[in-house]
Amino acid sequence: MNRVFTIIVFIGVPLVLAGSFLHWSSLIMFILCCVSIIGLSAIMGRATESLAIVSGPRIGGLLNATFGNAVELIISIFSLKAGLVGIVLASLTGSVIGNLLLVLGLSFFLGGLKHKRQNFSLVDARYNAGLLVFAIVVAFVIPEIFSQGMGDGGTIKLSVGISVIMIALYLAGLFFKLVTHRGFFAGSDKNDSGESGGSGESVEEEPEWTKGKSILILLLATLAVAFVSENLVHTFEDIGAQFGWSELFIGVIIVAIVGNAAEHASALMMAFKNKMNVSVEIAVGSTLQVAMFVAPALVLVSLMMPEQMPLVFTVPELVAMITAALLTIMISIDGESNWFEGLTLVAAYLIMGIGFYFL
Amino acid sequence: MNRVFTIIVFIGVPLVLAGSFLHWSSLIMFILCCVSIIGLSAIMGRATESLAIVSGPRIGGLLNATFGNAVELIISIFSLKAGLVGIVLASLTGSVIGNLLLVLGLSFFLGGLKHKRQNFSLVDARYNAGLLVFAIVVAFVIPEIFSQGMGDGGTIKLSVGISVIMIALYLAGLFFKLVTHRGFFAGSDKNDSGESGGSGESVEEEPEWTKGKSILILLLATLAVAFVSENLVHTFEDIGAQFGWSELFIGVIIVAIVGNAAEHASALMMAFKNKMNVSVEIAVGSTLQVAMFVAPALVLVSLMMPEQMPLVFTVPELVAMITAALLTIMISIDGESNWFEGLTLVAAYLIMGIGFYFL
Amino acid sequence: MNRVFTIIVFIGVPLVLAGSFLHWSSLIMFILCCVSIIGLSAIMGRATESLAIVSGPRIGGLLNATFGNAVELIISIFSLKAGLVGIVLASLTGSVIGNLLLVLGLSFFLGGLKHKRQNFSLVDARYNAGLLVFAIVVAFVIPEIFSQGMGDGGTIKLSVGISVIMIALYLAGLFFKLVTHRGFFAGSDKNDSGESGGSGESVEEEPEWTKGKSILILLLATLAVAFVSENLVHTFEDIGAQFGWSELFIGVIIVAIVGNAAEHASALMMAFKNKMNVSVEIAVGSTLQVAMFVAPALVLVSLMMPEQMPLVFTVPELVAMITAALLTIMISIDGESNWFEGLTLVAAYLIMGIGFYFL
Repeated sequence: MNRVFTIIVFIGVPLVLAGSFLHWSSLIMFILCCVSIIGLSAIMGRATESLAIVSGPRIGGLLNATFGNAVELIISIFSLKAGLVGIVLASLTGSVIGNLLLVLGLSFFLGGLKHKRQNFSLVDARYNAGLLVFAIVVAFVIPEIFSQGMGDGGTIKLSVGISVIMIALYLAGLFFKLVTHRGFFAGSDKNDSGESGGSGESVEEEPEWTKGKSILILLLATLAVAFVSENLVHTFEDIGAQFGWSELFIGVIIVAIVGNAAEHASALMMAFKNKMNVSVEIAVGSTLQVAMFVAPALVLVSLMMPEQMPLVFTVPELVAMITAALLTIMISIDGESNWFEGLTLVAAYLIMGIGFYFL
Repeated sequence: MNRVFTIIVFIGVPLVLAGSFLHWSSLIMFILCCVSIIGLSAIMGRATESLAIVSGPRIGGLLNATFGNAVELIISIFSLKAGLVGIVLASLTGSVIGNLLLVLGLSFFLGGLKHKRQNFSLVDARYNAGLLVFAIVVAFVIPEIFSQGMGDGGTIKLSVGISVIMIALYLAGLFFKLVTHRGFFAGSDKNDSGESGGSGESVEEEPEWTKGKSILILLLATLAVAFVSENLVHTFEDIGAQFGWSELFIGVIIVAIVGNAAEHASALMMAFKNKMNVSVEIAVGSTLQVAMFVAPALVLVSLMMPEQMPLVFTVPELVAMITAALLTIMISIDGESNWFEGLTLVAAYLIMGIGFYFL
Repeated sequence: MNRVFTIIVFIGVPLVLAGSFLHWSSLIMFILCCVSIIGLSAIMGRATESLAIVSGPRIGGLLNATFGNAVELIISIFSLKAGLVGIVLASLTGSVIGNLLLVLGLSFFLGGLKHKRQNFSLVDARYNAGLLVFAIVVAFVIPEIFSQGMGDGGTIKLSVGISVIMIALYLAGLFFKLVTHRGFFAGSDKNDSGESGGSGESVEEEPEWTKGKSILILLLATLAVAFVSENLVHTFEDIGAQFGWSELFIGVIIVAIVGNAAEHASALMMAFKNKMNVSVEIAVGSTLQVAMFVAPALVLVSLMMPEQMPLVFTVPELVAMITAALLTIMISIDGESNWFEGLTLVAAYLIMGIGFYFL
């Protein structure tokens, strides 16, 4: 399987390069770009996993989230440069609901098929729940509602103010988890069944690549993703017209699935190994990073772009994110999962997918 | 008391039959039909309780919910046939808020007057909470919001897609509770104080009727309900005009109370006996069945009717259901109840009742 | 510090008296009134604390909430008399979000800087969570949504009906906490680390003033607050014009901060002493009192005023209260706090503050 992804990358990326010079049709370029990004994401996932084994589950989860979101951040910056504010907001939405419902849901479901009941850290679950409500229910809803009585200038000022507060709180949260209250989170990791598995399991815990090689591969893959993303963004308009897909559907479903393939793969793998703490950290941690860091950072970056991006989603996008957050919280707050809870999350994703398709 | 209901049925049903041939006034027919349905529901409740004692609290709760909702399903199909889509959606709403706030609230309140603190299964409470959020906050909200940017055709397609997913998840949930994770739910039933009461209590646990007699009575009563319902539906228009009641008020409050009388009675009785697991299963289990099975089934059934029913409630209906679900979850998630929590639920029901009255 | 507040009061109140006769400029009067009210609130806080030590943490919290809200109630009645319905609703909103986010947030934050992890009663946290959802998510949302299809007459009738139910439930809640289920709440107080501190701490538990003196000071201070409030209210229009502040911003942020200074100070002090049960009781208990008693009481009082006040907030006000309630519940439902949870609440307050400023 790993070899397949490597081959995909070594064939796909050069083809994208060729196609961008020879102006191949949008459909071919769209498929090439998507496949290449998924291949690159898989390789980034392997490199991140190697790093994660060295650095423990928490830092590992953070690394996974960061490099998974690096892909998204890059695609988004190129989209902003092309003036596609709508697609950026849509792909942020897609990333949030994709991670919370699809990635976490499939992790719970597939993990639950193998293990009757899986546990993850209650401390983490509560920390995540609090921040999900902060980011999505407070910080995203306020500009949506309040901007209705404002001009464009007020909306941008409000968005910038909120973005600064969100980034500051995100950094404070890292300080809290990794410095002042490290013990509470680390202590709870002891319950992680993967770690308590004894020496017998430590065989499969060997990192595939060394630390140096992992970092080098991550950097190269990130550069390649940036290049492919720029080409991908320029196909959106044609593709939408050809398939009858709205900008919203492309952003929420297609870009989000392609952009999150890496998290997706690692979360599922970890769930299968019954390392639910890592799965949850990848899925929910990635969501929090998108909502509290990537989204506000893009608002600030857009100040230097021709078209500025307010922190104002469309109503369907916002409602999808809020309901996804509430469902995820309700299902994960007890620190336990099973296949049916996973299926419930996936069913919610399908409902939203149908909704965005018909919109 | 039981004799009273039996007499009501044996006098009421023939009178409805007579009235339907002799074209009695709407007011008389409305009262006769309501009283007969309540009587029939009470008999169905006794039959279901006899079955429940034989089959244990979980299957018993499912039986209660199913036969309680059979009444509703029948009334709704006749209403759809009469083209009264608005009343069907209203009575679904009424059933949800009636079960969550009135039935559960009165159970908590009356049970709490006798017992200082009552417990029910935490596993059940969390399972219910997750599905309430799925059904009401996700599956009902998405078509409401997303249909605003769609034509009628798209709305129906979206409704059908969501309905299929809901029914599939509902069946998967039964499989989960009754097959793959039976132990977790059954295990928690051991804490049910009714069962731990020892041999002294087993006297009142004798089923009133045999299994065969119970099933026969259920079938006959269901047929009678169907007949009476058809007559009831045709009085709505006149009654609304006479009392100044809106279609919404009739559907949400009157039809829901009449249609849920059976659940109502059994849930209260069980709460009084401190069998809170059964009470909660009747009230919340019935709500979940209405939301995840009856409502989507009616959407599918309506495809064969002259007027199709989308899964789109009015805004007040949807808001009432969402807030009712959130309040119920918040109050029941700890697996404990007392009289004040019950009163809080009932107060919320009164507020909504006043709202629908003045609407 | 205490001496400073005393001096403020003995200079400020006479100056307000002088200014009201000599018609000083609005700006000077606004500042004098605000400063005097803060000074008076501090003295009321000291008197209440003396009473609280004598009467235990629960009654103490109730006293704190009541006298803190007495200031608000007085300001609001004078505002209603002046026909400023919008400012009253805004200051109720400000009181809710200020208590839930700013007061509780700073308590968690400052307490958390000194103590790594602080605990408070789970029974209280759940009781509060249930009533927050009842009051804000049900009782405030229903009239907002339902009144959109009503005339003014229906809206007032609906508001009055809901207000009566809310006050009745609030009183039932006091009966529940102080009479029928006293043991559960009192029992959980045993875990309050302040009380388990042994005889060493009882030194700082000596009340500053006797019961009689405390009550006398409370009465006199309340009268002074009433007098100053009337003068404050008449400066709002000029101040708003001068600073470019909207009526909404004055009500939600300025009046709420000035009016809640007393709770603010006592809650922080208690958090610092690790008496989190009292802090939470002051902040959340005060919110519940505002939402379930002060607001509906003002609706009823306004029936005798020239302009009647419906229980209908603006959409931004309602959204701010709902999201504040959900965030607070999510963060406090586990009965634990730390500095980061406090910072999250404060960040949410800042976001709302920016929102109301730009509105």
